[in-house]
Amino acid sequence: MYKVLARDGLAKRGRLQTVHGVIETPVFMNVGTAAAIKGAVSTEDLQGIKTQVELSNTYHLHVRPGDDVVKRLGGLHKFMVWDKPILTDSGGFQVFSLAGLRRIKEEGVYFNSHIDGRKIFMGPEESMQIQSNLASTIAMAFDECPSSVADRPYMEKSVERTTRWLGRCKEEMRRLNGLPDTINPRQLLFGINQGGIYEDIRIRHAKEIAAMDLDGYAIGGLAVGESHEDMYRILDAVVPYLPADKPTYLMGVGTPANILEAVDRGVDFFDCVYPSRNGRHGHVYTNHGKLNLFNARYELDSRPIEEGCGCPACRTYSRAYIRHLLKAKEMLGMRLCVLHNLYFYNTMMEEIREAVEKGCYREYKADKLAHMTGREV
Amino acid sequence: MYKVLARDGLAKRGRLQTVHGVIETPVFMNVGTAAAIKGAVSTEDLQGIKTQVELSNTYHLHVRPGDDVVKRLGGLHKFMVWDKPILTDSGGFQVFSLAGLRRIKEEGVYFNSHIDGRKIFMGPEESMQIQSNLASTIAMAFDECPSSVADRPYMEKSVERTTRWLGRCKEEMRRLNGLPDTINPRQLLFGINQGGIYEDIRIRHAKEIAAMDLDGYAIGGLAVGESHEDMYRILDAVVPYLPADKPTYLMGVGTPANILEAVDRGVDFFDCVYPSRNGRHGHVYTNHGKLNLFNARYELDSRPIEEGCGCPACRTYSRAYIRHLLKAKEMLGMRLCVLHNLYFYNTMMEEIREAVEKGCYREYKADKLAHMTGREV
Repeated sequence: MYKVLARDGLAKRGRLQTVHGVIETPVFMNVGTAAAIKGAVSTEDLQGIKTQVELSNTYHLHVRPGDDVVKRLGGLHKFMVWDKPILTDSGGFQVFSLAGLRRIKEEGVYFNSHIDGRKIFMGPEESMQIQSNLASTIAMAFDECPSSVADRPYMEKSVERTTRWLGRCKEEMRRLNGLPDTINPRQLLFGINQGGIYEDIRIRHAKEIAAMDLDGYAIGGLAVGESHEDMYRILDAVVPYLPADKPTYLMGVGTPANILEAVDRGVDFFDCVYPSRNGRHGHVYTNHGKLNLFNARYELDSRPIEEGCGCPACRTYSRAYIRHLLKAKEMLGMRLCVLHNLYFYNTMMEEIREAVEKGCYREYKADKLAHMTGREV
Repeated sequence: MYKVLARDGLAKRGRLQTVHGVIETPVFMNVGTAAAIKGAVSTEDLQGIKTQVELSNTYHLHVRPGDDVVKRLGGLHKFMVWDKPILTDSGGFQVFSLAGLRRIKEEGVYFNSHIDGRKIFMGPEESMQIQSNLASTIAMAFDECPSSVADRPYMEKSVERTTRWLGRCKEEMRRLNGLPDTINPRQLLFGINQGGIYEDIRIRHAKEIAAMDLDGYAIGGLAVGESHEDMYRILDAVVPYLPADKPTYLMGVGTPANILEAVDRGVDFFDCVYPSRNGRHGHVYTNHGKLNLFNARYELDSRPIEEGCGCPACRTYSRAYIRHLLKAKEMLGMRLCVLHNLYFYNTMMEEIREAVEKGCYREYKADKLAHMTGREV
C-alpha cells in the first residue's frame, strides 16, 4: 500500500495507494478546515493547483454542519465534490486549542463547543465514529496534544494515556470498517507520536506505537511554540524510531524551510495553514522570498507575483492589481494570493520529489533555501 | 455603431459595436465597483458566465487606487485583464450617495472622500478626465442625481444644471479623445436623463439631451426609493422621447421583474448590484423564485441551486454544501452564489434577446414572471 520508491540520505520518495487514488510523497496536504479552503477556493480550483490531498478538521465538521449531516450526504468526498484523498485530523488538537473549559479523563475529553458553548464529549471511539461518518481516506488517532512547556511528569502521564487511546482507536476503527453502512470501509488510520521536546519520551512512545502496525505515523505536538532548533532536534531523535516503510507525517508544519529540513530528516507528509492564512493577509511566497503585497512598492508593478509561475493568479494578474484588491478589501485579492501560495507549496513538493529521485536533495535544499531567504523583489 | 436588429412592441434587440467588441442588447452589465466583482469573482470567471460588459465606478477608482495609477498601468482593461467592453459611471451618483459633506456649485461638487475624508472637487471636466484615464469603453456624463423626493423647483433647477454639465462633458470628452496620450481615443459618451418622478420635467430634459447627439442615453434617478409603479410610469412617459436608434440605459435597475418590464418599455442596457449583493447574503435566483440558502430546509438538499443550470456553482456543488459554506462564513459560499446569480441574470438577458428576435417577448415575459413569483422550492 505504501512503498518507498527512492531514498536520498534520510529523505524518502514514497507512494501511498489509497481507495481514493495515489499520493506521491513528500506531499503537502492543503488545509480546508470546514470542508473548504479559506479564501474562496473550491475543490474545482484544487484540481488546477496540483493539490493531492485535502485535509479537513473533524472538530469543526462535527460542530457544523455535523458529521451525521455529512454522512447522510454521502461523506466528505461527495459533500465537497473531491474524488482524491482526504485526511481528517482527530479533533484532538482543536479540542485543546479552541474549545472552552475542558476536563481530560481516561475515557476522553469533556469540553464546550467554541461556536455555541454546548457540552461535547469526545474520546477515541467518538473521534473514530465521526471520522468514519466523514468517510475520509485517512483518519488520525485521537491523542492529547499537551502544551509544549508541559513538565516531564505531566508529559509522561499524557503520553501513556495517548498510547492507551491509540489502542482504542485502532479497535474502534476495525469495528467501524466492518459495519455494513460504513461509507469508506477501507479508511486508513495513522497514529500520532507525542512527548513534547523530551527526546526520551518521544523515542519510548515511538517504539510503542511502531509495534501497533498502523497505516502511517505522525509526529504531533511540534510547531506549537517551541524553537525550530528544538523541532529539528526532536525529528533527528524520533524519526529513526518510526517505521520507515510507513508514511511519516509531521503535523501542522510549516514554512517552506521547515518542510525542506523535515524532508531531509525522513518526513514525507505535511500540512499547514500558512499558505492560505498568509495569502489572506497578502503575504505571498516566491523563490526569491516572501512579498507583502500591501507594500507601496507594488503600486505600479505590472509583473505577476512570480515571473514564470503557472498559478491562476500569476497567469493573468499583476502585483499592482492584486495589491489594489487587497487594499480595497476585495475578496478576490485574498483568493488570488491563496491560490498562488498553495500552488507554490504544491510545486515545491513536486521539486522535492524530483530531487530525492535524482539523489540531489541536499543540493536542491541548499539552493532553494539560499534563494528564498533573499530580500523582497 | 448601434443598430436595432429587431423590435417587438417597444422592446429593442440591438447591437452596439465598440472598440472593445460587440454588445448584444438587451444587456445586463455586471457591476465590479472597485475594478472587481464583489464575492471573489475575477475577470477570468466573467468569461465563463456570459458577461458582456463590466461596469466599474469612477468615484471608487478615483479615490483608490487613483485613476492616475490605472492610467500608468495602461487603463482599466489592462489593469483588470478584461478585453471586452467596460462602462464607467460618472462618479456623480456616489458623490451624492456616499461622500460626506458636499456643496454643489455651477462648476461642480466639493465633497469629502468617504475613505479618508480628504477634500475632492469633481465637475464635468474632472469626471471626463478621470474616465479618460480609466479608458473605459463607455463613459457616463456627470450629472446631479437629486433625491427622489426633491420638490419641483429644486428638480427644475437641478435638471437645467445637469443639461449645462452635459454640454461641458461632451466638449471635454471631444478634447480628451483628441489628445495624443489618451488610451482609448474612441471612448463613447452616454448622457443621463433626470427629473425625478415629474413626467414633464423628464420629457423636457429628454428632448434637450436627445438634440445633443450622444452615443447613448441613460435614465438616471430611478430605483432610488420610488415605487415600481412610479418607475414604470416614468419609463412609459420618457423613453419615447429618447432616440430609439441609440442605446437606452436604465441605471441601477434592478430585479429580474424590473428588467423584464423595462425591456418592454424600450430599455436595453441595465446594471445593478442585486445579483452580487444578494449572492453574498446567500439569496439566489432561480426560475422558480429566489431561495435563501441559509434556510434549514436545504441542510440535506443534494440538488444544485437550480437543476439544469450551467453555472460554476450548479455544475458541481449542492445546496447543502453551499448552505454549509454560508453558515460557516466560508468566502467560497458567497463566491458560488454570486457566480450563480450573475449567470442567472446574464442567461435571462440571452433569453430576452431571443424572445424579442422571435417576436414573442410578451409571452416570454408573462411566462417568466409567472414562474419566478413562485414559492421557494
